[in-house]
Amino acid sequence: MANKITERTEDFSQWYQDVIREGKLADHSPVRGSMVIRPNGFALWENMKQALDQMFKDTGHENAYFPLFIPKSFLSKEAKHVEGFAKECAVVTHSRLRSTDDGVEVDPESKLEEELIVRPTSETIIWDSYRNWIQSYRDLPILINQWANVVRWEMRTRLFLRTMEFLWQEGHTAHATKQEAVEETTRMLEVYRTFAEDFMAMPVIKGVKTESERFAGAEDTYCIETLLQDNKALQAGTSHFLGQNFAKAFDVKFQSSEGEHEYVWATSWGVSTRLIGGLIMTHSDDQGLVLPPKLAPNQVVIVPIWKSDEEKEEVMDYCDDIVSELKERDIRVKVDDRENMSPGWKFNEHEATGIPVRLTIGPRDLKNNNAELARRDTLDKNIVEREGLAQRVDDLLKTIQEKLYTTAKERIEDNTHSVDSYDEFKDIIENEGGFVYAHWDGTAETEEKIKEETKATIRCIPLEDGEEGECMVTGKPSKQKVLFARAY
Amino acid sequence: MANKITERTEDFSQWYQDVIREGKLADHSPVRGSMVIRPNGFALWENMKQALDQMFKDTGHENAYFPLFIPKSFLSKEAKHVEGFAKECAVVTHSRLRSTDDGVEVDPESKLEEELIVRPTSETIIWDSYRNWIQSYRDLPILINQWANVVRWEMRTRLFLRTMEFLWQEGHTAHATKQEAVEETTRMLEVYRTFAEDFMAMPVIKGVKTESERFAGAEDTYCIETLLQDNKALQAGTSHFLGQNFAKAFDVKFQSSEGEHEYVWATSWGVSTRLIGGLIMTHSDDQGLVLPPKLAPNQVVIVPIWKSDEEKEEVMDYCDDIVSELKERDIRVKVDDRENMSPGWKFNEHEATGIPVRLTIGPRDLKNNNAELARRDTLDKNIVEREGLAQRVDDLLKTIQEKLYTTAKERIEDNTHSVDSYDEFKDIIENEGGFVYAHWDGTAETEEKIKEETKATIRCIPLEDGEEGECMVTGKPSKQKVLFARAY
Repeated sequence: MANKITERTEDFSQWYQDVIREGKLADHSPVRGSMVIRPNGFALWENMKQALDQMFKDTGHENAYFPLFIPKSFLSKEAKHVEGFAKECAVVTHSRLRSTDDGVEVDPESKLEEELIVRPTSETIIWDSYRNWIQSYRDLPILINQWANVVRWEMRTRLFLRTMEFLWQEGHTAHATKQEAVEETTRMLEVYRTFAEDFMAMPVIKGVKTESERFAGAEDTYCIETLLQDNKALQAGTSHFLGQNFAKAFDVKFQSSEGEHEYVWATSWGVSTRLIGGLIMTHSDDQGLVLPPKLAPNQVVIVPIWKSDEEKEEVMDYCDDIVSELKERDIRVKVDDRENMSPGWKFNEHEATGIPVRLTIGPRDLKNNNAELARRDTLDKNIVEREGLAQRVDDLLKTIQEKLYTTAKERIEDNTHSVDSYDEFKDIIENEGGFVYAHWDGTAETEEKIKEETKATIRCIPLEDGEEGECMVTGKPSKQKVLFARAY
Repeated sequence: MANKITERTEDFSQWYQDVIREGKLADHSPVRGSMVIRPNGFALWENMKQALDQMFKDTGHENAYFPLFIPKSFLSKEAKHVEGFAKECAVVTHSRLRSTDDGVEVDPESKLEEELIVRPTSETIIWDSYRNWIQSYRDLPILINQWANVVRWEMRTRLFLRTMEFLWQEGHTAHATKQEAVEETTRMLEVYRTFAEDFMAMPVIKGVKTESERFAGAEDTYCIETLLQDNKALQAGTSHFLGQNFAKAFDVKFQSSEGEHEYVWATSWGVSTRLIGGLIMTHSDDQGLVLPPKLAPNQVVIVPIWKSDEEKEEVMDYCDDIVSELKERDIRVKVDDRENMSPGWKFNEHEATGIPVRLTIGPRDLKNNNAELARRDTLDKNIVEREGLAQRVDDLLKTIQEKLYTTAKERIEDNTHSVDSYDEFKDIIENEGGFVYAHWDGTAETEEKIKEETKATIRCIPLEDGEEGECMVTGKPSKQKVLFARAY
């Protein structure tokens, strides 16, 4: 099998599509903007989901499930929320088809009294339920998460990064005090940072969005931002402090321990299958997918090689022992003993699907008590001893996990700049890309002017304190440098 | 807290709703026919999902995810399929809202060129993908499962048992031969039987549907059927042999090892959140939910009792040790140490939410090295020794699991009848209900006549062989007795 993956330097966007195709992660669907997540892609999402779900449960959250359809009138209840989502809503208007001579048509008699919106996010339908669940301070906090599909009508889509339908989790919490809600917002942002860095090996910067980039209906949107191999930024997760906006829109009050009736404080937070796009663009190379061991559906693949039936039996016995030893260490391993493919064909496939470690075992390895061990990330190959193999593989998986993180971290640091003049800013954004720290006067006007002139947006106001200075465009005072980049 | 649950003998349907409300399993949603699955209900579904998912993986299946929206024209491709689903389709016709003076309205300019159907089931969108994935016999079999939400517009809904939107899994497999596909269909039916009986403790009968009850587009629909406490039947899962119908509709051919081009053989199979309704109506009682230990989100709850801070510390230490011992045995345990509720209030809640085993620990138990152990299913209470407690609880959970099954099995056997005359049949259906075996001549006419006259339907033609005889209605020959009941 010839390598069918375009080189990154040649055409990054084509490379991304090729990696997804050869890694069998996803397909475009006949419904424009939708995708089919194939078993390899879904197994990766399952591992991400499992790790995140455990982190949510460890921080006291429970899962629930709210309806897919939201009455149109619900969306209108929070003014900014509807403004933000009205232009990208799939609307259900009818409930039946009827037969015609050439097939079926929508039955006009089945028109709904009130149109239903396919959820673009669930604040409104959830806060409608919370009104029924919350009477007193004893009912608070409510700490709920939902794993669901959502739909946002998008015209320019890209597999995983931006699709009309996507899978995500959305946390929705209700609190008695502002302080508790703010703490929840930053706690979940930290959960996302931990997940991104420790599991995805994807370094991120934590910050808060400017007003113009805020979630529709939020008082503050916190985010994690990363930088991909093409030097464009990606928003990888957001956590919103919603204030009392949704409680007011849905009239959700509670009786405090002092007997007062007060509006409830809210947060929401989410990450989606978009993370898979970020993962690909952080680690993968011209051979295809590179996956961090903690998330890889298969961490190790063993390729047995034989010429005769007798050899086969001996080789397979040798492999089975290795499999047992690896499984004892909870290593996810599979043996690729398919008969109708050459080892070279298999190697290509395993590289394209990003299995972190490959062991090749032939009759010579049996004789010498060896195995050939190959690393996906570096493409290094070595002959290693059979003795201590499981321990070596276990260690190697940890090494790879760390190496992917430090490589990405160094890449991002090398492509992060700090500038003092707008000329320097424009030059870097135009010619190099990457993260650029610069002073900004805090106004939406200046933010918009920079965006129009350079296509760079403020990714976030970093949570870490910075020094005061003067806006690179207007010269007005700035509290700290903010983070700019061109972004997906 | 007074018990707010209506007795079963008084009003079974109200009892069912009360059990769900007091068990905090689900709410009606403002969108007619949709439901909100609350954390208690969803935790139960997660456990069911996890057990089933493992069984699917153990039988070689992988998970994937296909789009929510199906182009209208896809549904029409398989004639019987569209006939079956046309009258219950949520149809998306527009993609935007626009502001008006009193809120928002659907933007008429956003009308879609082709309407989209919210999937009622995914055969059509999946077989459109399979056409791209299958060229040769080497690409077969494809063994894929999907966990998803689906929508079927229903007017008469009931929480869990019949809702407009529901959660389910749908397996969709593609095979080179008819035999393989039939084997897959019956293999998955057996997986469902095992899950229903071994995990849900819900005895079922395996059979095949009559032509009139077949899935729209199937050649044969296999099912598992159970009998609930009100003597009505419930179809709990179906597995369809689809023949080459969808392969022909979507033009999916493969090159066989002999070089011939042949249509692919298909199956599909699914179970849904409807199972939760079956679980409730199989085991629960007038005190509320009764859950089989294998699926209960919490298997054990510990209620500590104290009067002073000093007692509290001692009691909590004693409880913590028990928790550690139970967790070592992978028993799911929680301590209910909420301060603002009385023990009696907690006991009621734990009964209503169906926690199989409750341990109550007070200062006297510490002194005597005891614990009070209560069983949810029998409501028995005993003082037991602290020594060997974890082992005793572990054994008890297994006992309860078995007991629930045998109790349900006996109830179903007691309510299963075999008749030879139509008068006897009508008498039993009208006055007792339950499962009734009777001879039937195999025609849709007789089946329809019986349904009209008695509201009983043929639940299935049991897979077990029966003796030949004569139809109770027409006297025509019958190969075996079939299973009748009034059903949900």
